Order: sequence, then structure tokens, then C-alpha cells
Amino acid sequence: MIVVMKPRSTEADVGHVVKLLDAMGTGSCVIRCAERPIVEVLGLNDRFDRSVLERAPMVEKVMEKPEPIHAAGRRAHEGTLELRVGEQATIGGRGLAVIAGPCSVETESQLLEIAHAVKEAGAVGLRGGAFKPRTTPYSFQGLGERGLEMLARAREETGLAIVTEVMSRDQVELVAKYADVLQVGSRNMHCSPLLIAVGQQSKPVLLKRGWSATLEEFLMAAEYVMQEGNRSVVLCERGIRTFETYVRNTLALAVVPEMKRLSRQPVLVDPSHGTGRAHLVAPMSKAAIACGADGLLIEVHARPGQAWCDGDQSLDLDQFRSLMNELPAFAAACGREMKPV
Amino acid sequence: MIVVMKPRSTEADVGHVVKLLDAMGTGSCVIRCAERPIVEVLGLNDRFDRSVLERAPMVEKVMEKPEPIHAAGRRAHEGTLELRVGEQATIGGRGLAVIAGPCSVETESQLLEIAHAVKEAGAVGLRGGAFKPRTTPYSFQGLGERGLEMLARAREETGLAIVTEVMSRDQVELVAKYADVLQVGSRNMHCSPLLIAVGQQSKPVLLKRGWSATLEEFLMAAEYVMQEGNRSVVLCERGIRTFETYVRNTLALAVVPEMKRLSRQPVLVDPSHGTGRAHLVAPMSKAAIACGADGLLIEVHARPGQAWCDGDQSLDLDQFRSLMNELPAFAAACGREMKPV
Amino acid sequence: MIVVMKPRSTEADVGHVVKLLDAMGTGSCVIRCAERPIVEVLGLNDRFDRSVLERAPMVEKVMEKPEPIHAAGRRAHEGTLELRVGEQATIGGRGLAVIAGPCSVETESQLLEIAHAVKEAGAVGLRGGAFKPRTTPYSFQGLGERGLEMLARAREETGLAIVTEVMSRDQVELVAKYADVLQVGSRNMHCSPLLIAVGQQSKPVLLKRGWSATLEEFLMAAEYVMQEGNRSVVLCERGIRTFETYVRNTLALAVVPEMKRLSRQPVLVDPSHGTGRAHLVAPMSKAAIACGADGLLIEVHARPGQAWCDGDQSLDLDQFRSLMNELPAFAAACGREMKPV
Amino acid sequence: MIVVMKPRSTEADVGHVVKLLDAMGTGSCVIRCAERPIVEVLGLNDRFDRSVLERAPMVEKVMEKPEPIHAAGRRAHEGTLELRVGEQATIGGRGLAVIAGPCSVETESQLLEIAHAVKEAGAVGLRGGAFKPRTTPYSFQGLGERGLEMLARAREETGLAIVTEVMSRDQVELVAKYADVLQVGSRNMHCSPLLIAVGQQSKPVLLKRGWSATLEEFLMAAEYVMQEGNRSVVLCERGIRTFETYVRNTLALAVVPEMKRLSRQPVLVDPSHGTGRAHLVAPMSKAAIACGADGLLIEVHARPGQAWCDGDQSLDLDQFRSLMNELPAFAAACGREMKPV
Repeated sequence: MIVVMKPRSTEADVGHVVKLLDAMGTGSCVIRCAERPIVEVLGLNDRFDRSVLERAPMVEKVMEKPEPIHAAGRRAHEGTLELRVGEQATIGGRGLAVIAGPCSVETESQLLEIAHAVKEAGAVGLRGGAFKPRTTPYSFQGLGERGLEMLARAREETGLAIVTEVMSRDQVELVAKYADVLQVGSRNMHCSPLLIAVGQQSKPVLLKRGWSATLEEFLMAAEYVMQEGNRSVVLCERGIRTFETYVRNTLALAVVPEMKRLSRQPVLVDPSHGTGRAHLVAPMSKAAIACGADGLLIEVHARPGQAWCDGDQSLDLDQFRSLMNELPAFAAACGREMKPV
Repeated sequence: MIVVMKPRSTEADVGHVVKLLDAMGTGSCVIRCAERPIVEVLGLNDRFDRSVLERAPMVEKVMEKPEPIHAAGRRAHEGTLELRVGEQATIGGRGLAVIAGPCSVETESQLLEIAHAVKEAGAVGLRGGAFKPRTTPYSFQGLGERGLEMLARAREETGLAIVTEVMSRDQVELVAKYADVLQVGSRNMHCSPLLIAVGQQSKPVLLKRGWSATLEEFLMAAEYVMQEGNRSVVLCERGIRTFETYVRNTLALAVVPEMKRLSRQPVLVDPSHGTGRAHLVAPMSKAAIACGADGLLIEVHARPGQAWCDGDQSLDLDQFRSLMNELPAFAAACGREMKPV
Repeated sequence: MIVVMKPRSTEADVGHVVKLLDAMGTGSCVIRCAERPIVEVLGLNDRFDRSVLERAPMVEKVMEKPEPIHAAGRRAHEGTLELRVGEQATIGGRGLAVIAGPCSVETESQLLEIAHAVKEAGAVGLRGGAFKPRTTPYSFQGLGERGLEMLARAREETGLAIVTEVMSRDQVELVAKYADVLQVGSRNMHCSPLLIAVGQQSKPVLLKRGWSATLEEFLMAAEYVMQEGNRSVVLCERGIRTFETYVRNTLALAVVPEMKRLSRQPVLVDPSHGTGRAHLVAPMSKAAIACGADGLLIEVHARPGQAWCDGDQSLDLDQFRSLMNELPAFAAACGREMKPV
Repeated sequence: MIVVMKPRSTEADVGHVVKLLDAMGTGSCVIRCAERPIVEVLGLNDRFDRSVLERAPMVEKVMEKPEPIHAAGRRAHEGTLELRVGEQATIGGRGLAVIAGPCSVETESQLLEIAHAVKEAGAVGLRGGAFKPRTTPYSFQGLGERGLEMLARAREETGLAIVTEVMSRDQVELVAKYADVLQVGSRNMHCSPLLIAVGQQSKPVLLKRGWSATLEEFLMAAEYVMQEGNRSVVLCERGIRTFETYVRNTLALAVVPEMKRLSRQPVLVDPSHGTGRAHLVAPMSKAAIACGADGLLIEVHARPGQAWCDGDQSLDLDQFRSLMNELPAFAAACGREMKPV
């Protein structure tokens, strides 16, 4: 049950409602929405009397808690948002955006070689991890700020928008200083303090689906970000954990048309993590476009065999160019086109 | 460990090897392959002496049990098989085949209306269940032979190849009398007696992946059929069971390019069972084509709201025609085309 | 919607209802229950008029299709059934039953050695496969009837009740001739023709949960058997397929108290398949008893390292004896005891 | 490949190795272990020459990267650790510890009522969330520091050790000021910055398994904490996400004996989240003890129907007392006993 206050309700108005609830023996929790406060009633009991609240002057209505998915929700007449990322690029709208790059930033020369190659092949963004979430503490954890500087250098040279991961609330400011898009990774999709923190800054957020998150949990994670005022959220399917073993993850593409139906946010697909196998990246990229994705996030490395991490799922430069040559035909079959570089 | 006999080994030769193994205290199991017998050694122990077997005159070699996937295996230079189904149609090869029809055969008029419509829209086969595997004994179990007769009638009128399910070994002869393709459903993929029985008749077999079968288990099920001499096996991905709830199954499309890589058999996708939601059938059909499927198996009903089962996942006739109009562009993007009707 | 006929309705009465439905443009499906026929209405439409049926003289009532789980359902005041298996043993009731033996029957001496040992240790039944469902056609498929004869021999020598698997409808008669309990394996839990066939004979049925079956599907499989008149169904949890890899299956023990709540049928647990690891069998056996199982199904082999299959999950004779010594304390903690041998 | 430096290697020594690697064209990553630095070689190539490193004076050895699970690893002769929590209690060792309390701290009177009741019934710790990870931003997010103060008050009155969740790195200091045990929740198990932060303070850490974490990932998360010097980690199984729907999570109890085999850390089980159903908490608590758990984490509320969250899985006070009366018999069957209060 929630109590929706009238617009322009004051603190005193809210306090009055809280006291009424207190007197009826229930708890309360105040949610401060953009337009007006809402008071949630906690722990309903027999003494709860709805009419007492409805008679209070600053209460607009008392109602069952609504279905969630507000901020990210789509109304029938609305199209997919086109979000600006960096100086030149966008994600969403009619064109398809490809963001490519290495799993992790290793050295400046490694990064620049890849950046130039993916730019020429038609990517609009460069991905690369400076802070790496790893399963074991004994694995390479990323170059940190030094990696961010290399990414900024690559942007200067190529104009590519920079997409890189932020792993905790206290890294947000630092990463936002360098990146054009802040990525929240699959491991952190459920981490509300981080979601709130990236919602309180203004750079676009690339939110990857948790590998065991339901569709609703995924949209609710986006809601955490958007509730804070940042509407520039890009959703990204990257595979879920199932019983299958020939792939690292099961790419669950049906979520793409379903998210496009429920939400206005652009939807990308990451076929690299989504399969974990380089030879499956091209076919699944095409499938992602065919079922309505607004773009792709692809791992590319000049020498995958020597990559510091995730080499098994990285395309080499030739494989990436070859894929980029094939994609326009699938875009056209969908009545869309690749974003111009 | 297996003992590969020389070609033309007699029963006495095999019996000799079995006795040698017996004397060494191991068990044995004779596998009668097409070309020669193989004796599997069971329960290896310290007394086992490989050289004793290698010296036996009719033994060709003693070796570790090989990796499975023989009959269905693909060698690098080989393309996908093109299998004849019925009088006029094929599955596999360069063209894409669409098989469509209702979940279950209900009445002759229902079936003929759908059959004519899907034929006109470009389908090459008609699906429809006469024997229905259902979760509860209180649900409609299919019309049985009467349904098979209706399917045969639809073939006469339209020329469509008939695909229908067989659920147990003792139904094989009856179903094979009417059907052009025998379907083994997801629930029965692990049922080796049925696999062997459909392998011993000559009609093509459409083998659906078990909803929790690994890729290897799926290919091994095909192997059961093919070992009996029937090489006309079509593989069909139809969604797996995961934690997701907004769909009935998770369509795991990456299995398509992986199966095409490992095997020469044609691969279809069933986006109807693969999602369980009519509005997801069209996007996932396109995705299936884009990642390399050789065709689709789609549930279509003239009035899905009145279907006796699975109405939620059935396209109506207009939706099916509309999808069929869109598919050629995706086929072309793959360098392929729809099979001519 | 279903039409429940009055008791003693004739074929003509049922035919009358079917005609009424036909005239209203719906399909129908007659379910012949023990007490009276039921007609299911298929494909509801606007012309359907409930009152027409309700006025028909032999119709008792027209109602929404009820929640399933009839035959296996438990009413509040009822305890768990105690089912006789073989000459001397029971499963269910207050005592706990342990059934043990090798994965597959290999040789008579192997089987008798194990049978005597498990009998002495306190088992009431002997398990052992004569027909083996295997993932690949290249694996040992069981000794067939020769294995059944060995099992019968072991019963003669030890008095143990014999539990062995039946894999298809046409094996039922043969297996029922030798076995005391017919096991339907996890791979076949969804196979309704087999369920119906074991429901039409009178020996008790041990029904193993499909490795991806929901609780409802499992109870519905039991319902298929019981609808045919055979109420002697024992339910067996044996692990489900999940993302976990350190075990072969995830033993989902909460299903035990839930099934005991919903149904009167005895519930066993198979910790051998349920974990796939011999060192986990003892702790999970104790856990199964602690949460309310009516007994255990355990793989035991005199020399697991030489077992023809599933050696990794088999206890050796000492390990089994040791476990059987520990179980009474857990039975007592539950206010129960081990069944006397 | 890693380069293990000799103890007391200086920064200059490490720098020398890094330069050698650089000259051979590989990357490097320095891991600062307690005893000595280790240099990981990243991106092996043909120019890499192991002997160059082995000749460097401060290098002890060059070796393949070892299997993980160091800090948490168990050697054969070692028992389970007994960790002090708060002033009076311990977790681990021979006795079984029960920690109980509400899902979230609501009001002081609510908390004190529960705290006194669970103390009397035999609990050694009080659980209760002040910071709540919730799926939607529209749900109650916890009382924050006010909730922590109430927990501290409950400790004063009852002597119970306080277990409460910390959700992000910047909350660690605050939560550690009030709590006796810092809980890292299932949603945050993969969040390495948080794991590192709780590893750098000295209060014990209760680490809940991620709902889709493999056993290895779980142990590696513990490793993150322990690498920082905090060895007081308690592992807690709380159910995994599977296809099952009659429960909120699938309690995967086999992980308990497996973790006890691999690690010295105490292992608790949370049957409340592990099933999501109050009526399954008691049987699964007994099962957890039976398979070797060192204790339980149980949600208890004086009036579950009015709980502000998770009422469906909370025991009421009578149910909890009744369970606590039954547990000693299961502890005794394991040769253990409940910890004295």
C-alpha cells in the first residue's frame, strides 16, 4: 500500500502522514520521487484504516503499490531513445552502433593498434577494461587510472567514444573523468549503491545484465539508475548461466525483442561474453541484429593468443573487419543501417 | 578400451576375444557396427594385458575408446546434407525450409484451412500432432490415427510434406505409414528404444533437442538413430529450461552454428516452443536464419485463441504470411534463399 | 472447462454431450475416469453456452478444469502410504527403507557378492540395471533378460526385493515377470506411454524425477501411472541439472518435505545419482533422512574402480556398512527407525 | 606463468624482473603476497625465455600458475576453525551455532522482542538488516545507521553477537563500528572491491554464496577477503537459482560437505533464503546439520504476516522455539552439540 502525496507537499505534510501510520501501528518508508513524495505503508495490520489517510488534506490517493518499471517504461507510441555518447557518436535510434576493443587495456601500443583498426572497420566506440572484475585475486586486476589515461589517449587519436567499467561507488568520479560511457558489469548489476552512484552523474551508463538476472531484475536495475535522474541507460544482454558447457554463457537473445517492447532504452548484445568462443561471435552478432538489437559490444584483440585475458572469445583484427563487412546486409534486412563513423 | 576386430570377423572370432577377456577377469560388451564388430572391455583390472589381445589374429587394434560423434560427424570439406522429405521437398542444402502448422490436429477443416494457408505463404511442410505428449493425463492427448488420416488428406490436397510426432516404439510403424518425417519430441530425446526404432525404418527423423540436453547428448541421440542405418536425421533446437520466466523456454541459438560446425545434418529452429510467446516468434525466426539455421518449425493456427493447445505461442495466418514475406531478406543476407514451393 | 457426467452414464449419454458441444462449435475430449466419464471442452468460443450442458439430464456439473494432482493428493488427516514390495518388504510408513546395489548387473558372482553384503548391512531391496539407458550408443547397454535372471537368483538367495528399470512399453511384461518393483528412470519420467503401461500392471513403480522436471511435472507423471489404477507409486528425488559442476547433479532435497506435504506416496532419495560423487553419498543420505525421506536408493559395488558404469558414485561394501551403522541415529532423531530386515 | 621472488625482495628486485619481461615482450602484473612478491607473466610469446628469469638472483622459481584456493585451503590433518564472534560467541569448532532474527530491523521494540526470544531459545547471534539490497528502488531500503544503533542496543540487552550486512566499500567502517560480524550478501559475492575492503578490517565476515556462483567462485571470493589478512571468514550456503518454481531458491546442500572437505572455514546454511518458504525451514535446517553444517542462519519474526520484508520465509517465535528443541537430537547423531548460550 502506498500513500501518494499531492504535489508540493511539505516535510510537515509527510510527517503528518507518518504519524497517522504510526498511530495505526504500521511502519512507513518515505520515497522522494521527482514530483511528489510517496509514503509506503509497511507491516499492514488490522488497525490500519485507509479512510483516515484519504481524509488527510495533502494526500492525493491511497493505492496498492503499482507494478514497477516506471522510468524505463515504454508507451505504445514511443520509439527507442537515441543517446549521445561522447562528442560524435550515439547509441539507439535507427542506426546500429558497434563498440569494440580488448577485454583489458594492456599497453598504449596494444590499445592504439586495436583502436585504429576498429575505427577503420566502422566501430563508433572503444571498449577496454582498466578496472577488471576477476574471479580470483591472483588474476590481473587491470591497470587502473593508467589504463584510463591510455583510453583517453586513444579517443584523442581516433575520436572513438570510450566505454569502460566502473566497479565501485568510490571509482565513479575517477572513471567518469575519462570515460564517455560508464559500464556496470554483470557481476555488479545487483549492486544498488553502485547503480545509484552512476545515476547521480551525467555520463551515459551501459548496464550489463547479471548472468542470472531475470528480465524484471534487469529492468529494475536500470530503474535504480534512472530514478536518480540519469535517463541515459543502455541495456546489454551478455549471456546467462545455464547447464550448457560448450559455451561460457548461454546468449538468451529473446530478451532483446522483449526489452525493446517494454522499454525505450537502446539494447546492445555482447556476443563475446555471450558465448565465450571466438568462432561463435560472428553468427551470434548477425542473430542479435536480426532480432532487433541496436548494436553490439565485441571483444577484439590484435593477437588474441597473447591477450592478458579472455583471448578465447576475442576476434582478431581480420575477423572483426570481415564481420563488419557482413553486418550491413542484416541491418538492411531489418530496415536499418550501420551508424556512420 | 575397445578391441577393433578385422572386417569379416566371425562370431567365433569375437567369442575368442571375449574368452581372452574373461580369462583376464574383465567383462566385455560386443558392439556390432556396420563394417566390423567391436568389443568393449569393461572393468579394467591389473591382470588386463593388452598385448595378449593384440597378438590375436583377428584383432585389428586395441585402443582407447574414441570420442563419440561418428555417424553425425562432419569433416572439414563436407557441406550440409540435403535430405529428401516426402515427394517434393527437401531439408538442408542451400535453401531454407519452413515447416508450419498447428500444435495438434483438431478437425479436418481446421487442418485444411491452415495447410492451404501455410502452403500459399511458402511452407514446404505441414506439422501437426496426432499423438500429443502432455504433462498431465487430464489434457487432450491427440486424435491418434484419426489425426494421422487428416494429415494424409492435407498432403493430398496441398503436396506439403507431413511432419508428426511418434511417442513410443510401438507407434513407429503406424506413424511411418502416414508421415513423411517422424518427429521425436523433446521429452523423448533421451529415450534410446524409440531412437533405435526410428533408426530402423527409412523415413527421415526430426529430432528435437531435450529441453535440458547438452549439445553432446543431443548429438549422441542422433547417433543412436544413425547407428541403425538411418542417416536422414534433422536436428532441431527448441529452447532449453533455465531460470528465466518471461518465456516458456530459453532459445539457445548459439547451438545452431556449433551443430553446423560439428555435423553435416540440417539444423532447424522451433521459435514457437523456443519462446512460448507468439510476439517473439518473428524476431527469433529471423535470428535463427541469421545465425545459420537451415529452416524453421513454426506453430500456426487460424484462430490461436481457440486452439486446443499451445495457443499462446501460435501465429495466426496473417502473422505467418507477414513473417514469410520478411524472411527472404535475411536469407539473402546469408547468401541463401527460401526453398521454392 | 470440463463436463462431469453422473455416475453410470452410458456411452450414449457421453455421445449426447459431445454432440451438444459440436453444435456449439467446440471440440471435445472424453476422459474415462474410474467412477464416471468426464468430457473436456476444447477451443471455447462465443457460441459456447454453459447452461445448455447443465440442463442435459446426465450431466452432474460443468466446471473449470480443476487443479491437477488428484490420485496422488494428500488430505490433511492422511499419513504416508506403506507399500508392499516383494514378499517381505515395504516402503513407506514409519520405517526407513534402504535399497542398494550396483548400477548395472554385470555377472552373477558380482551381483550375489553385493546382494549378500547389502542384505547383511540392512538393505531391504536390491537395485541393479539389466536394461541401461546410456547417453551414447557405444556404451554398455545392459545384459537384458540374462541380467533379470541374475536378479531373480539374487532374490532367491537373499530374500531382497528386486528393483530394476524398464525403459519402454514393450519391456514392461518381461521386467514385471522378474522384478518386485519397476523403476521408471529420470530420462523416461516424461514418457507418458511408458507411464501408462506401468500403471496397467500391478507391481509397484519407483518413479525417478526427471533431471529437469518441476515438482508439478513430477507429480503429474505419478498421476499418469495412478490414473490407470496402480496406486503403488514410490517417488524418488535423484538430483536436478543446474549450472553446478563439482557434482554430476544438484540434489534438491527441499522437494522431499514438499512432496510429503502434497502427496501420500513414499519418497526416496538417490544420493548416488544425486551427487555423482561417492564421498558425498554418506552426508547426503543423512540429510535426506533428516528432512523426511522414507528411504534411500544407493549404488554399491564390491570394487567401484572396476564397475562397468558409474563407479565414481558407488560406495564400496565397507563404506556402505559404515553408512548403515550411522543411519539409525538420524532415523531416531526423526522419531523413526530403520525397517527390520 | 608466475615468477616467485625470494623473501625480502625489494622494489628494485621486482622492477628488475619486470624489465626482463618487458624486454621479452610480455606484460607483467605484480602480486604482493604476505611473504614475498610474485610477478605474473601476461601474454606469453615466442620470445619468452624462462631461463633468463631463473638466472636472476632474487628469483626463487618460475612456475605454472598454481591451482587457486590457498588461504582457505584445508590440509588433511586440520579441523574446522573456531572463530570468535563478539564477546561471548564462536562459530565453528565442535558446537553448532544458530544465528536468528528478522530480515530487516524495523523498530526497536520489534527487534528487542525477537532478540530476547531467540536468545532464550538458544541462538548465539542476532541477524537483522539495516542496509537492505532490494530488487527495486521502490522497496524499503533499510533504516541505515538508525538500524545499526538498534542492533547495538539489542546486543547490550541480550549479549547476542550482531550479524548485519554491508553493501558497499564506503559502508564498511560504519557497519564495523556496530556489528560483530559483517555479512556480504549473495548479490555482492562477486564484488571484489567490497571483499577487499572487509578483508582489510578485523571483524569476522559472513560470506553468502552468490545465487549463481560455482563452488570455485565462492571459495575464490573468500580468498579475496583472506588475502587481505582477515582469516575470519564464515561461508554460508543460501540456495541457488534454478528452474524450480515451488521454492524461491534451490538449497544445494551437497556444497556443505564439499566445502568442509576443501576448506577449514566454518560453513553455515540459511534455509530461509534457501527455500523462501517458512514451512520448509525446519526440515532443511535438520538436513543442513545432518550433512555437516556448522550452524544455521534463520529468519525469525514475531509476526511474519506483518514483516516489512520476507515474511513468507520467516518463522514465528513458536516455530523457532520448536525447531530449536528438535535440533539437539540431530547434532547428537553427528557427534556434535548445540553451542551453549
